[in-house]
Amino acid sequence: MYFATYLENGSEKIGVLNSSRTKIMDMEKLYVSFGLAEGLKSCPKTMLEFVEFCHDGVLKQLQQLTDQDFNNNGVEIEKVKLCAPIPYPKRNIFCLGKNYLDHAKEVGVVLGDQDEVPQYPIYFSKVASPATGHGDVIEYMPGVVTRLDYEVELAIVIGKEGKNIPKEKAEEYIFGYTILNDVSERGLQKRHGQWHKGKSLDTFSPMGPYLVHKSMIPFPVELEISCSVNGEVRQQSNTNNLIFDIPTILSDLSKGMTLKSGDIIATGTPAGVGMGFSPFKFLNSGDIVSCSIEKIGTLTNPVK
Amino acid sequence: MYFATYLENGSEKIGVLNSSRTKIMDMEKLYVSFGLAEGLKSCPKTMLEFVEFCHDGVLKQLQQLTDQDFNNNGVEIEKVKLCAPIPYPKRNIFCLGKNYLDHAKEVGVVLGDQDEVPQYPIYFSKVASPATGHGDVIEYMPGVVTRLDYEVELAIVIGKEGKNIPKEKAEEYIFGYTILNDVSERGLQKRHGQWHKGKSLDTFSPMGPYLVHKSMIPFPVELEISCSVNGEVRQQSNTNNLIFDIPTILSDLSKGMTLKSGDIIATGTPAGVGMGFSPFKFLNSGDIVSCSIEKIGTLTNPVK
Repeated sequence: MYFATYLENGSEKIGVLNSSRTKIMDMEKLYVSFGLAEGLKSCPKTMLEFVEFCHDGVLKQLQQLTDQDFNNNGVEIEKVKLCAPIPYPKRNIFCLGKNYLDHAKEVGVVLGDQDEVPQYPIYFSKVASPATGHGDVIEYMPGVVTRLDYEVELAIVIGKEGKNIPKEKAEEYIFGYTILNDVSERGLQKRHGQWHKGKSLDTFSPMGPYLVHKSMIPFPVELEISCSVNGEVRQQSNTNNLIFDIPTILSDLSKGMTLKSGDIIATGTPAGVGMGFSPFKFLNSGDIVSCSIEKIGTLTNPVK
Repeated sequence: MYFATYLENGSEKIGVLNSSRTKIMDMEKLYVSFGLAEGLKSCPKTMLEFVEFCHDGVLKQLQQLTDQDFNNNGVEIEKVKLCAPIPYPKRNIFCLGKNYLDHAKEVGVVLGDQDEVPQYPIYFSKVASPATGHGDVIEYMPGVVTRLDYEVELAIVIGKEGKNIPKEKAEEYIFGYTILNDVSERGLQKRHGQWHKGKSLDTFSPMGPYLVHKSMIPFPVELEISCSVNGEVRQQSNTNNLIFDIPTILSDLSKGMTLKSGDIIATGTPAGVGMGFSPFKFLNSGDIVSCSIEKIGTLTNPVK
């Protein structure tokens, strides 16, 4: 099941897509015509509300939607403007640094600490409120940006509040998955010691195109992941190469800290970032970055 | 003008205090009886909404409230439960690290880099949704917490959205000030490389007791700041000792990154944290931590 936040005639909606991802149906329409979200006074208006409210009964109803239903009530996906699935997360995005071995090594070469494969997960956060949608511009801000870099990442969206989550129950707490481009300004990331600001400039959190329910993706999650710039493949790996896998991340991160439904955790990026090349291959105005993950889709953003 | 978020008979309200801070008046009552927030369909329900909406006209009305008004319509401050002024910030708190010279040196001694006085501001973020109120417990979580530390900080609350804010206009973008105890678990702060997780455990963001409007505090901000544990003064300084002062922080942080109304920026802590003593003086269950800033108040929290 694929969900999206989108603009239609200027108003923000949430919707569900058909299996071929060609049509989207407004959740509000489902609420009115199909009795979705029964018992609720009103239909969830944002993806955050939907993720919090969603339960097996609702999923079952959505699974029964037919091509006919989408033909009668859906809109062509090309006719709407996709937003980030969760345009205003409740808290910053939780991000993992150096969580693929090949990437830990490539940045280690630049930073002079190539033997430093993390013994513990490295967590930092990224401002993503507002998050940037599929097709929206990553701003190249002259005077601020000098070493603009891309990082394709599998992002987990939490479905159920949890603290001290046991590894073996990790999947229970997940709602689904999306793609995050963890856009980074390497100059600022280094200058300010901690990475926070270099990861948090305006438009630095492209996310989407869809939020994919976990029922679509077998667990453990083993998905091809890649990133290309102007059609040149730069990053290519599989999420089974994570140093700290998803159960470990959820279990470790939630130790002493409650994860909330709608929280987003970006699991790290594989080798092939601009900083990993010699000479560097940083982003420039006019570039097109495409981040793809198997079964989720492709998130494309121009740099301007 | 002092504002607070509080619980009365189980429901969360926002209110304004009289000058002696003995009584609080419900904003909703002001809206109904005094015609506050004219032109708005409904009264702001949260401090975030109030900060966004507040303008000079409203402030003028509030300044005209008399002791009689508070006697007739206010509630004794002892009879309500104070919450963090902004219990659910829109984004994580923006925090500055090592922003007092004496503190940069004391942690430098422990970390072996005492000559490292920051050349640029160090920014990290702290999860503070929910934030912890005055009087609420800082949890000492066995198995997670081993080196629990306190950090009194002056926190700025942004009043007006801004990007690339010029230093000389910094004050325009501020709504007011509050106190943050940047509670830190030093073990986790170090283990995870980046500081984010060690700063973000549940209950690690005590904030309050009040949000003080900037009109009460001359600019540049020069306020006595201190922290005591069980009555023993541990930290004592003045906010005029900041390495990067408030105009510099607002100008630098907003370069390429829009600050939103309601955003909170914690400006760093002076010397005297538990990690700065030899032997260390970390917090234990049963301790009482009090953070005070002149003209703002005292934020007290027990550790349990």
